[in-house]
Amino acid sequence: MRADVLAAVNALLTEDGYDALSIEAVADRSGVHRTTVYRRWGSVPMLLVDLLDLGAEDDWRAPDTGSLEGDLIAVNREVRDALSADPSPTLAVIAASFRSPEAAQALRRFWADRYERCAVAVQRAVDRGEVPAGTDPDRLLIAATGPLYHHRVLLGRALTRDEADAYARAALAGAAGA
Amino acid sequence: MRADVLAAVNALLTEDGYDALSIEAVADRSGVHRTTVYRRWGSVPMLLVDLLDLGAEDDWRAPDTGSLEGDLIAVNREVRDALSADPSPTLAVIAASFRSPEAAQALRRFWADRYERCAVAVQRAVDRGEVPAGTDPDRLLIAATGPLYHHRVLLGRALTRDEADAYARAALAGAAGA
Repeated sequence: MRADVLAAVNALLTEDGYDALSIEAVADRSGVHRTTVYRRWGSVPMLLVDLLDLGAEDDWRAPDTGSLEGDLIAVNREVRDALSADPSPTLAVIAASFRSPEAAQALRRFWADRYERCAVAVQRAVDRGEVPAGTDPDRLLIAATGPLYHHRVLLGRALTRDEADAYARAALAGAAGA
Repeated sequence: MRADVLAAVNALLTEDGYDALSIEAVADRSGVHRTTVYRRWGSVPMLLVDLLDLGAEDDWRAPDTGSLEGDLIAVNREVRDALSADPSPTLAVIAASFRSPEAAQALRRFWADRYERCAVAVQRAVDRGEVPAGTDPDRLLIAATGPLYHHRVLLGRALTRDEADAYARAALAGAAGA
């Protein structure tokens, strides 16, 4: 039942944006009774929060390609593809995070969880001597992926895989040379 | 008159956010008659667009500190300070850009204009041999400033000047080593 409801939230958000979300629309789309949706989630922001929390419960693991360059490129391609899908659930969730403080918090928890799962890849790179000991995994991940969000979300520009790769390599060079 | 109206838009947006913006509120705050505001701007999004266009008409020039490292650090500190002000007009405008496609376009024009003005700093660095000929100014600027927006706007984390400096240095290392 939770999966049906959250799939409906994701679909409505992606197709029509935050303004189209309502308990009624989610109930209709999911086939779950309105009263049930109201009782369990209570509000549109809480539906978004649960959608993001569901994302954070998956079994995603950092790439392990054998080099930090390969790992960062794999992460950046994943982010690039998510931001370039048309329509993009990721873009829809980011836009919604500016409407709902609860959704913004959930999105930040989601990202914090992803960075935490990437720390092992950075540690492997430290062990291999690719970056200095003490390299901050969060800062490296933000340096690699931050330009993708700026480029695609705030600047609204198309983003190729080659560009995503270049941002990954530049972030690595920054960390390796620091 | 334009300056009074746009100052009122900026103040209302920064203090209370996009939802508080209305032609009436702007007229009241600026002391300009509602009919005049309606006739000249027509809608809240067009007020935002004009505010951003005003920003793009200023005489801002890229820093010229003698090194690209210094120039990028100066740019990053400026962005960091704008994103860290409390309240922050920049954050308010970014949030509003998710509500109004016209405002999003105006914000993108504003950034494109800033990058264009920074191209001369990158060219100076190419001439000094600090980065390779053919270095893409936009990509370098996005690599330097993108992490600040991600860090501060999307992740909602506090951002120190040292962190802003580190992102600038990392972007330069990425460009110099590419």
